[in-house]
Formats: sequence, structure tokens, C-alpha cells
Amino acid sequence: MKNNANNYSLLNLDERDSAAKLFVGESLQLSGCEVSFNRLAAGEAAPFVHAHKKNEELYIITAGSGLFYLDGEEIAIRSGSLIRVAPAASRAWKAGDNGMEFICIQTEAGSLHQATRQDGIICDAEQPSWAK
Amino acid sequence: MKNNANNYSLLNLDERDSAAKLFVGESLQLSGCEVSFNRLAAGEAAPFVHAHKKNEELYIITAGSGLFYLDGEEIAIRSGSLIRVAPAASRAWKAGDNGMEFICIQTEAGSLHQATRQDGIICDAEQPSWAK
Repeated sequence: MKNNANNYSLLNLDERDSAAKLFVGESLQLSGCEVSFNRLAAGEAAPFVHAHKKNEELYIITAGSGLFYLDGEEIAIRSGSLIRVAPAASRAWKAGDNGMEFICIQTEAGSLHQATRQDGIICDAEQPSWAK
Repeated sequence: MKNNANNYSLLNLDERDSAAKLFVGESLQLSGCEVSFNRLAAGEAAPFVHAHKKNEELYIITAGSGLFYLDGEEIAIRSGSLIRVAPAASRAWKAGDNGMEFICIQTEAGSLHQATRQDGIICDAEQPSWAK
């Protein structure tokens, strides 16, 4: 872990190879989201159905495939599937025959007020070494 | 794109294969973050250095390697690197010899007030088909 005066944090994941679920919010000092990296064996399922009080979740399936339960409906998902889940929706999941990996991003619903061009500032006075 | 009464949205990425940068916030109706999927060719660099007004960013390097510029410092990154960048930090990046792919998550700094166990609700009355 590297940290430069709180302007950034860097974490190089290797330990992920053995972790079934790894939360990185605390170690990275994230203040706008909590993020977890998840790895399920073939046929492995979430231990319970859950919902949220205030937080929206985005699931990014990064490997394998499976099923996602949403408010009583079940949909097929696979590497490349992105699922936004509103706080009140009940959710669970199960990995398919080749297991499944996903990243889950948790944010407070309605908390983003501007992004990208509205929020970005071009720093004309600065250049990285490769642009000089 | 599938959408069920706004309780969830599903997007299955295939078009990503040809997109250098794909924002998914609008299509998924994300309200807590903006997320982009980024693919750089070997040696390709961000077109400018930028900072943000209010938003924190989390970069998740998902393939390849490269360099990340942060407030005048340059650090080596590779698949598995996670970089939190505070709004005011100036940032840019360059892909290495094998290109680089990353996910960028943009949230409002300080907007997450509770997460995971504090925010989650177990839904005991519901069971997916595989638990019945």
C-alpha cells in the first residue's frame, strides 16, 4: 500500500488469488464507494438474499457465469454483464459450472451530482514525462 | 438492456470489444457513480492531465500494465492495481508495451455514509430457486 499525502492510494492485488471476498474501501480510504472483489467456486451461491437501506449496487461480472436473483426473478449473467440494483431490490446469486468472479460497487443512491466533463478540470500546466 | 420497474438494469457488454472508452452510467441509470471501461493500445496515453472538482476516482487495472501520473509522480501499475485518486490530484496514464485496460469509477468524495453490514438488510422471507 502506497499513500501520498492522501491525494492517492495504491493497492496491488495479489492476495486476491486466495480471497473469496475482499473489501478494499478501508485500505484504499475510499470515501464515495465500497468495492469488493468476489470469487465463487462452481455452484457456489450467496448465503442469503439481501437488500439495502440507502445504497445502490453495481455488479460487474468479470469471469465465469451464473444466475442473479432480483425481486423473485432470475436472470442469466456472464462475464461482461453489468447489473445495477436499486437499494430496495432483494438480490442473490449463484455461480455456474465454471465458477464466477465479480466486482461489487456500493454507493449511496442519488449521491452523484455531476461527472466527467461537468466535474473534470484540464490541467494544462502539467505534463507527464511521456508528453514532454 | 433490460430494466425491471427501475429496481434493476442489466447490460451485457459485447460492444466493449471495439470501444476505447465506454461510459455506462446513463444506460444503466446509475445514480451513485459513473463508470467507464477503457482500453488502450500499446504506448497509448491519456490525451491530457486532469483533476476533478468534487469527484473521487477509483481506477481498477484489469489487463496489461502501464504508468500512472499523480501530482508529478509516476508509478508503475499492472493488472490488479487499484488506484484511489482524490478530486484535487492531477492524473494521467500511459499504457505499456502490451496495452492496458481499466475500469474507472467516479463518485462524489465523502458521499458514502454507511456500507455493507450497516446498510444491508437480510431478506429472510425470500429464497431463490436454488435454495428451495
